[in-house]
Amino acid sequence: MRRAIDLARKAEGRTSPNPMVGALIVKQGKVLAEGYHKRAGGPHAEIEALKKLGEKAKGAILIVTLEPCCHEGKTPPCTDAIISAGIKEVVIGVRDPNPQVRGKGIRKLKSAGLKVESGILKEECQALIKYFSKFIQSGKPYVILKSAVSLDGKIATSIGESKWITGPKARKRVHQIRARVDAILVGAQTVIKDNPRLTARPTPQSERYPMRVLVDPNLRVPLNANVFYNAKKERVAVVTRPGHRARKKSLEKKGVFVIEIPEKRGTIPFKKVLENLGKMNIVSLLVEGGGETSSRILKDGEVDQVMWFLAPILIGGRDAVSGLGGEGAKKLKDAWRLKKLKVEKVGHDILIEGEL
Amino acid sequence: MRRAIDLARKAEGRTSPNPMVGALIVKQGKVLAEGYHKRAGGPHAEIEALKKLGEKAKGAILIVTLEPCCHEGKTPPCTDAIISAGIKEVVIGVRDPNPQVRGKGIRKLKSAGLKVESGILKEECQALIKYFSKFIQSGKPYVILKSAVSLDGKIATSIGESKWITGPKARKRVHQIRARVDAILVGAQTVIKDNPRLTARPTPQSERYPMRVLVDPNLRVPLNANVFYNAKKERVAVVTRPGHRARKKSLEKKGVFVIEIPEKRGTIPFKKVLENLGKMNIVSLLVEGGGETSSRILKDGEVDQVMWFLAPILIGGRDAVSGLGGEGAKKLKDAWRLKKLKVEKVGHDILIEGEL
Repeated sequence: MRRAIDLARKAEGRTSPNPMVGALIVKQGKVLAEGYHKRAGGPHAEIEALKKLGEKAKGAILIVTLEPCCHEGKTPPCTDAIISAGIKEVVIGVRDPNPQVRGKGIRKLKSAGLKVESGILKEECQALIKYFSKFIQSGKPYVILKSAVSLDGKIATSIGESKWITGPKARKRVHQIRARVDAILVGAQTVIKDNPRLTARPTPQSERYPMRVLVDPNLRVPLNANVFYNAKKERVAVVTRPGHRARKKSLEKKGVFVIEIPEKRGTIPFKKVLENLGKMNIVSLLVEGGGETSSRILKDGEVDQVMWFLAPILIGGRDAVSGLGGEGAKKLKDAWRLKKLKVEKVGHDILIEGEL
Repeated sequence: MRRAIDLARKAEGRTSPNPMVGALIVKQGKVLAEGYHKRAGGPHAEIEALKKLGEKAKGAILIVTLEPCCHEGKTPPCTDAIISAGIKEVVIGVRDPNPQVRGKGIRKLKSAGLKVESGILKEECQALIKYFSKFIQSGKPYVILKSAVSLDGKIATSIGESKWITGPKARKRVHQIRARVDAILVGAQTVIKDNPRLTARPTPQSERYPMRVLVDPNLRVPLNANVFYNAKKERVAVVTRPGHRARKKSLEKKGVFVIEIPEKRGTIPFKKVLENLGKMNIVSLLVEGGGETSSRILKDGEVDQVMWFLAPILIGGRDAVSGLGGEGAKKLKDAWRLKKLKVEKVGHDILIEGEL
């Protein structure tokens, strides 16, 4: 199973909206074939492995990180292929959280007389499908909130200097994360202030660009902002409230998707934003601030994971911008506490990660 | 030398204003005696070791973390004792930074015909005398700036709730640090808001209380504040500007030392505060905020070390109090960058330490 997990990870960032899956076929302790799900629309991991074997798969054991599917999707159900290949035993990491599968694949295999064992290295296999698991069950993307702050929580000095708080290695890491998610979201204030490109600076190996999502209720961001660059080829969406007809037309002409969501108590509810992105097959979303946007999505209870880069510097300043503004938690017991905490040095900086 | 360092550390927090020193006497690879400096006024480490041996020290090697003194202090010079004991070789960790010694001890030993080697495990031996080294050369205590903040740098929520940001293990660690320094300093705002006792909650083993220092230019803190508790027995000082005659009298009646320092550009310069504390034999000082006081001492360039406890929580809030307020650094290049960075988990919290 360890090997199957490694195989699955080979396609990290390329399988969305599908999960990463790895599989191998073993007979008498010897690995006969390996496979992993390379990209959405392509063959599933099990099929990748099976198709290399043909007749030789008879009587072998299939080890796969995720329960094989039993429904017709872009590809035929894997359970049928497994059964007809003559596999005698299937070892599964984790059950498919997809409501269309969820144990049905296992039942189908069992009723065909195959021996099935599941829950092997369950946590690691679960981690592989973390984004997919949330998405398939809620219709909303898995949300990662990222910030890069000083030890005293500032993202800029009192006069607004913000480049750069963290060093090159931390910034490189952010680009790697961007390349693995389906979309990046920022607030209008950040775009107006920093005019970021929000690209993943893709390497020659990675051909995909994450979608850029701008939350801009009043459409304050100018049309020539970097975030709109090349919107015809790279997907860019603006979330705004209904109205602003003419402005929307100009945005759409540039190739920008405009998502209209009515405000609720003065802000656009993030639940609706995520549901809309889910409908666009956005399985994972990186929220990159600023302080007000981050605070609002936290307050809406829509953050799954926090990635907090800390530069080992003190900035100070009553008027310096905090990495998290907004209303915040009034009581300490209502503060957002990171679970499954991980602390890592990234260059001169420190990365603190956790789940909410 | 490793053993000598361990010996020295046995008296951690009890030797001030003297440094920690450890020594051992070795002959033919066998340790004959060990000693360490137990408390100010008591025998130096070398003497502790020598007095156990008498005649047997003849021809032995003395290993000592710090250059032996050659001047009359509360105890006679160690160099004389070493020479007259018949020690043939002295291995030294680090030279004494005390301007009264600084190599003179080594020269005296050499001119008496002893073999002297110095600089063994120099860095570790240097670390032992870190506080003393700064104090003896500058007349000012070694300053540790401590704070306990959320990941977004807050020390309280927007409605002022601040108990507790960090967990019991981090708070216990703070008490251990308090027990090792000579004094703790806070600003008036912190005392008015939190009314802390600032005690080290000493264990039965540790009989000492660090001095409590309150910076209160306008003498705003009420006389019944916890910080003044038991001021006759435990040392308490208030730093203020000249004036407030009657109020000062009342404080002095309670046993509080009043240190008057004229303001400069609207604030009391920390250089003067530290010089005054140095004169009171305060070798190490822990600054425990709040955000304004911490910012001012940083701005004055008077911080040697930073201990930053981070709770893995996000608090948020535009109006929540930051761990570092004040003017702060305007340019990122002027931000205070921690060197010799150490990252450590303390319970559920994270401690980030570094030198400035």
